[in-house]
Amino acid sequence: MIPRYSRPDMVAIWEPATKFRIWYEIEAYACDAMADLGVIPRENAQAVWKARDVEFDVARIDEIEAETKHDVIAFLTHLAEHVGSDEARFVHQGMTSSDVLDTCFNIQLTRAADILIADMEGLLAALKRRAFEHKDTIRIGRSHGIHAEPTTMGLTFARFYAEMDRNLTRLRTARDEIATGAISGAVGTFANVDPRVEEHVCAQLGLAPEPISTQVIPRDRHAAFFAALGVVASSIENVATEIRHMQRTEVLEAAEFFSMGQKGSSAMPHKKNPVLTENLTGLARLVRMTVVPAMENVALWHERDISHSSVERNIGPDATITLDFALARLTNVIDKLIVYPGNMLANMNKFPGLVMSQRVLLALTQAGVSREDAYRLVQRNALKVWETGCDFKTELLNDAEVTAALSPAQIDEKFDLSYHTKHVDTIFGRVFGES
Amino acid sequence: MIPRYSRPDMVAIWEPATKFRIWYEIEAYACDAMADLGVIPRENAQAVWKARDVEFDVARIDEIEAETKHDVIAFLTHLAEHVGSDEARFVHQGMTSSDVLDTCFNIQLTRAADILIADMEGLLAALKRRAFEHKDTIRIGRSHGIHAEPTTMGLTFARFYAEMDRNLTRLRTARDEIATGAISGAVGTFANVDPRVEEHVCAQLGLAPEPISTQVIPRDRHAAFFAALGVVASSIENVATEIRHMQRTEVLEAAEFFSMGQKGSSAMPHKKNPVLTENLTGLARLVRMTVVPAMENVALWHERDISHSSVERNIGPDATITLDFALARLTNVIDKLIVYPGNMLANMNKFPGLVMSQRVLLALTQAGVSREDAYRLVQRNALKVWETGCDFKTELLNDAEVTAALSPAQIDEKFDLSYHTKHVDTIFGRVFGES
Amino acid sequence: MIPRYSRPDMVAIWEPATKFRIWYEIEAYACDAMADLGVIPRENAQAVWKARDVEFDVARIDEIEAETKHDVIAFLTHLAEHVGSDEARFVHQGMTSSDVLDTCFNIQLTRAADILIADMEGLLAALKRRAFEHKDTIRIGRSHGIHAEPTTMGLTFARFYAEMDRNLTRLRTARDEIATGAISGAVGTFANVDPRVEEHVCAQLGLAPEPISTQVIPRDRHAAFFAALGVVASSIENVATEIRHMQRTEVLEAAEFFSMGQKGSSAMPHKKNPVLTENLTGLARLVRMTVVPAMENVALWHERDISHSSVERNIGPDATITLDFALARLTNVIDKLIVYPGNMLANMNKFPGLVMSQRVLLALTQAGVSREDAYRLVQRNALKVWETGCDFKTELLNDAEVTAALSPAQIDEKFDLSYHTKHVDTIFGRVFGES
Amino acid sequence: MIPRYSRPDMVAIWEPATKFRIWYEIEAYACDAMADLGVIPRENAQAVWKARDVEFDVARIDEIEAETKHDVIAFLTHLAEHVGSDEARFVHQGMTSSDVLDTCFNIQLTRAADILIADMEGLLAALKRRAFEHKDTIRIGRSHGIHAEPTTMGLTFARFYAEMDRNLTRLRTARDEIATGAISGAVGTFANVDPRVEEHVCAQLGLAPEPISTQVIPRDRHAAFFAALGVVASSIENVATEIRHMQRTEVLEAAEFFSMGQKGSSAMPHKKNPVLTENLTGLARLVRMTVVPAMENVALWHERDISHSSVERNIGPDATITLDFALARLTNVIDKLIVYPGNMLANMNKFPGLVMSQRVLLALTQAGVSREDAYRLVQRNALKVWETGCDFKTELLNDAEVTAALSPAQIDEKFDLSYHTKHVDTIFGRVFGES
Repeated sequence: MIPRYSRPDMVAIWEPATKFRIWYEIEAYACDAMADLGVIPRENAQAVWKARDVEFDVARIDEIEAETKHDVIAFLTHLAEHVGSDEARFVHQGMTSSDVLDTCFNIQLTRAADILIADMEGLLAALKRRAFEHKDTIRIGRSHGIHAEPTTMGLTFARFYAEMDRNLTRLRTARDEIATGAISGAVGTFANVDPRVEEHVCAQLGLAPEPISTQVIPRDRHAAFFAALGVVASSIENVATEIRHMQRTEVLEAAEFFSMGQKGSSAMPHKKNPVLTENLTGLARLVRMTVVPAMENVALWHERDISHSSVERNIGPDATITLDFALARLTNVIDKLIVYPGNMLANMNKFPGLVMSQRVLLALTQAGVSREDAYRLVQRNALKVWETGCDFKTELLNDAEVTAALSPAQIDEKFDLSYHTKHVDTIFGRVFGES
Repeated sequence: MIPRYSRPDMVAIWEPATKFRIWYEIEAYACDAMADLGVIPRENAQAVWKARDVEFDVARIDEIEAETKHDVIAFLTHLAEHVGSDEARFVHQGMTSSDVLDTCFNIQLTRAADILIADMEGLLAALKRRAFEHKDTIRIGRSHGIHAEPTTMGLTFARFYAEMDRNLTRLRTARDEIATGAISGAVGTFANVDPRVEEHVCAQLGLAPEPISTQVIPRDRHAAFFAALGVVASSIENVATEIRHMQRTEVLEAAEFFSMGQKGSSAMPHKKNPVLTENLTGLARLVRMTVVPAMENVALWHERDISHSSVERNIGPDATITLDFALARLTNVIDKLIVYPGNMLANMNKFPGLVMSQRVLLALTQAGVSREDAYRLVQRNALKVWETGCDFKTELLNDAEVTAALSPAQIDEKFDLSYHTKHVDTIFGRVFGES
Repeated sequence: MIPRYSRPDMVAIWEPATKFRIWYEIEAYACDAMADLGVIPRENAQAVWKARDVEFDVARIDEIEAETKHDVIAFLTHLAEHVGSDEARFVHQGMTSSDVLDTCFNIQLTRAADILIADMEGLLAALKRRAFEHKDTIRIGRSHGIHAEPTTMGLTFARFYAEMDRNLTRLRTARDEIATGAISGAVGTFANVDPRVEEHVCAQLGLAPEPISTQVIPRDRHAAFFAALGVVASSIENVATEIRHMQRTEVLEAAEFFSMGQKGSSAMPHKKNPVLTENLTGLARLVRMTVVPAMENVALWHERDISHSSVERNIGPDATITLDFALARLTNVIDKLIVYPGNMLANMNKFPGLVMSQRVLLALTQAGVSREDAYRLVQRNALKVWETGCDFKTELLNDAEVTAALSPAQIDEKFDLSYHTKHVDTIFGRVFGES
Repeated sequence: MIPRYSRPDMVAIWEPATKFRIWYEIEAYACDAMADLGVIPRENAQAVWKARDVEFDVARIDEIEAETKHDVIAFLTHLAEHVGSDEARFVHQGMTSSDVLDTCFNIQLTRAADILIADMEGLLAALKRRAFEHKDTIRIGRSHGIHAEPTTMGLTFARFYAEMDRNLTRLRTARDEIATGAISGAVGTFANVDPRVEEHVCAQLGLAPEPISTQVIPRDRHAAFFAALGVVASSIENVATEIRHMQRTEVLEAAEFFSMGQKGSSAMPHKKNPVLTENLTGLARLVRMTVVPAMENVALWHERDISHSSVERNIGPDATITLDFALARLTNVIDKLIVYPGNMLANMNKFPGLVMSQRVLLALTQAGVSREDAYRLVQRNALKVWETGCDFKTELLNDAEVTAALSPAQIDEKFDLSYHTKHVDTIFGRVFGES
């Protein structure tokens, strides 16, 4: 986790204090359930709640752990310091450390997912607003980086919206996949702890009980979770790449917002670098790199080995903190993106009218010109535009062979941009349910 | 794709003949829709169906492509050879090659998903059968590869069932994500082809129209698809790893089935190697390696670049063919797995009774012995077992300090295996809805 | 392996016939060594060489394997059909299948490396030629896609040269790492085969004996090998990305060569797509994806498990064939790349003279103007250029405050391009040893 | 970076204070060189060294950066506070931020490599010591997890030694690859800074000048660096996997050292978990995951984009700190590994004598028994061992058909373990240069 690429709410989820608070709640609810079942005395269960408002002393717990070499025992020892040794003696009874650790980790991931989902909703709102704002802003569509046919900037925003909307669904699915808890003992048989304890704790903490666990919650859930984050990150890279292209000097169809005080790298006013989206490109790599180790974590030995643990200590916080930051940064970039419609038109007309050559070709053949002749006619005029920068329509109007087949009005009509935007409303309707 | 790791039905999906058949259907249905819209003559649309039963000549198409350097044009040229040049002249009108290529690729992936879903259902059936068969087969649960507490072989099968059942859901989600088609023209604006053509073709071919496409269908869908395959592969590795452990000479709790004719590597009857599950471990790596490039494919430039294409030509067939083979192989392994309940018991009792030491410890403390004393009592007897292989229960019964706290009957009760299996029915109920 | 992305020499390395030929040589040389050691009769060793010029019948071997389920035994059986059962009875004595398989695989990788090394030398030659050709072709350098300061196209080629030259070294190192053989028996102890057999076979086949093997050659060698290919692939992507940027419509500083017959996608002469370099971008992903599974292959169980095998059956051919094709394709692209020096100048002067603003700023401060004032002076003139497209130098010469500090000659000098190219010779000297 | 998996020396390399110290040295040496060249006054260069012993105030620099939004400017501002504004005014002249940042990063990676190299030497020493200690400790070799033929524990250590020795070479190569510096200005042309400045700074700091750079040092170097770390990590996983297998309850041929105070998880003395090597398995995944993003960083746009930066801020510290910790932990594990030769023998004899069945088979055929008969004879006796646990040699001696072909002495000789260890000295000689 790199502080400069993190935001406090997500960081807070991964702080030791949060972890201990969650451990506490798991243990306290478990005691309640055990008291309900008559397994431990009611008053001992109630006593645990004396610590309800305690802020656990992380340094003290670390101190105890340094001795006991066991994090859960250290916490329980510290808890007893608040609750009273005798009152606390039934806490954790029949449970195994992983019951607490794994359930806690899933709660943290679930909360992280909640933030990511909210982030995504924010991004969607920004994309939607910009899509409608630029619904009719004409811009050349490009395949292979080469001008193809006109489209609109609004369609670009709309397709990012649609992609991120799918990612919202993926994040929700990932959240549901990971929102399980397990309190099932050393090898998952509930030998020393009744399944109803698990049910109660999960119900209180907003989790589903893991239908079958071993010592741990199965790691295919986590693999699916991080895979979803990897897809979201790849979509962020997708949007970032578009903006980086748009901002390059020769294109300059958009630019990341520069605050007044912010300096470019020099005296050159054109030197406004798309550093935010370049940064997002890198952050996407960081999130994506966690997918494979999360998948390698699935094949644990028998009822568990602990190889997954060090991996998750890293990728749990790192992937979620980085993705949260990236989503927020991207939202900000989209929100404030400076769009240059004038440059869009100028770029499209770099070779004036040439992007319409295909329509003219089609019109000629539909007017009865053979395909070979039509191609020859279009190409000889197109080449002039290509070589001299003259206007394609003018050339066509001056070409007797062309005008023999198409009237000036017909030729003119082929340069009507609305031909290309006539279905924008339909597409917006599909994407946003409105247009 | 490696022939020895492939099965014919999945291979068939990726054969040129299948691809051309799908292209044909896309084009033919598109003609129907265009005729409905009055864009092309009805008789031309009908003429295309003359080729309904034609098996396209792949060699002939390759020949044409060698000249035209364009696969779709080559196909259309060949199609015209069947339909008649004149009749075929409206085929593909207003469409772009990617309309055909991308829609076809998604159809292939959808069909591949259908096979994988059926494979998974087969695997689930095998796992369920073996789970019930060995529901009560006692076996030591292991954490860190070290004996922990008893469990049953049925629970092992049941947890693989639950994991694969989640994978079934993931495959279904992946299938739905990828089952879209797009016929939207050069940059996705429908400038030259009405959106209703897309709708008709998709309806006929069992796809949803892509709400917004560029020249191509957005690749986040494919990234999510391959990510799902990667999770499934990781689960296969998980099951394979368990079996490989079970078959190792010192454990020998299970073995892959050996056909009569099949030779181990030598004259040694114990030399039956778990080569199928080792192979599955490798195949899992092959499927998993496709996840990152599929994610790298998401960030195409503007309305498309073609960098994704070579990647997909490889990972499309390879990942699906390999995973299909792996699922089928695993199903076969599970179906015929030889389980050795006797060895399971023998392993559990390598240090007779020792796995119950924790229960005895608990019982002593519950009987009023201080935690320190209880620990000392258990440990001194446990160490004898550990060092000499004697029986733990016998030692306890002979230890006066122990029997002062616990009666022989109470001691005996701690060695009752049913203590560990009492919730197996509950867990089976959760997993299978029955027990 | 995708046929369209493959070349025959590399494909030949991976054909069954090649494999059997290598197996044959390993076995034949091993017999020689065993005869030298007196372990088997000389005449039996000599008899094996009767098959020296035989082309082994792959179909026949497959047929035998279908029965024996063992590839090496099938081959040995077929060999006996040529040599005579009796004469062949000592072939493979004391050896284990992996002795043959692993040594063969390393020979194939070594030969593959030799081709890749030759490919790389070809690419270097092309890059060097183009570097000298365009040593002085002025072009704007860009950071963040934004114009920075002038450089030359020759320097671009030169840095790709330097990078590929490092890759040549990496390929040579990778080749040396993988050029080992092992004939050490079932667990690597040479129990049944003398180490001198290994030494002889390796010497004959151009390999170093593996200092210590188990049943297999250690897989860290292969991991390092594929990692080297992954780095090379990433460099290919680097060059490809540069060219894709240069060819985009708004930049158009270079273009992939189009053969006369080849059609762009349409009637539009500008529609020449950088499909080769886009393809290379995808191929780079395919090579790179093999790195992680090659690393996952390192941790085999004990003296070997067979999980690596299916992985290598795939990535061995696929990564080398793809990389060979990619290197050849890139060499061709570089060789024939159409460079547009005029467009380079035009792009640089999109905002006439503006890229020199930093030098002017520096000159003003060195002339005694305070940094704040200098910045203000430069920026007010630069902004005019930015907004109106006027010429920066003209504006400066017309700004009294500027000319108060700098003479017209001094101002003029700041626009001298040779200032930026004065060290090109030095850099060429470093890279090529000549300039 | 996870504090619990880090060691102070490696962490120190990545602390802000270290970074600023390196920046300072780069700037100061650059001033020296510029003074030598007469570009700046000698006294200004000398003035910079006034800060030679200053500990830069990280908080103060952060404070300035919060304002200027530029890390290098913030540092230079702070430096001026120590050196004097006027004296410091030539610092960084003609240089670009990346000159400092990239050269610094490579120095940090070089120092990190030095630590890793020392770590590796430590690991090699431990492996060598244990190899000689257990040179003759007999142990069963296993392929596929199944008993094959005898080997020795010393050979296991020796092969890990050989593998790590190759990794030492890889680390040294990686170190040399990364030990370059660049001070070449905004696009690498040395327009504003003489190449001799770069040469001087590099010479002083133990680096080679980068032959050709852009704004940045080319990232193929870094890709190769992290790839090398990934291979090393995979070898660590290899050793860790072996130990985890050896420690499992049923095998118990070795165990990680337990300090006296340390508790297993319970009252069970057998419950000593191989948590260190399990942890190493996870740490290997963490290092390995950095390889692909490092490779994705290679293809920067034109003369640089900043996408690599966020990636490197993470993987630079994380991969080196984790690998340093892992190497140290593994060294400790090897150093203190408890080896159980008795259990090794017991395991080998789980089926008494059976691992010799192949030798007996060979002997029978060499004695003239037909292969079919020999196989039948061996198998009928082997099966008894397999089924009843009786002794293979005894059975053979009691089988008249066997003794008809082989004398008791001949049979006995086949069970001589020294047959399998006769080349251990040769192998040790190859690996260690001594035996």
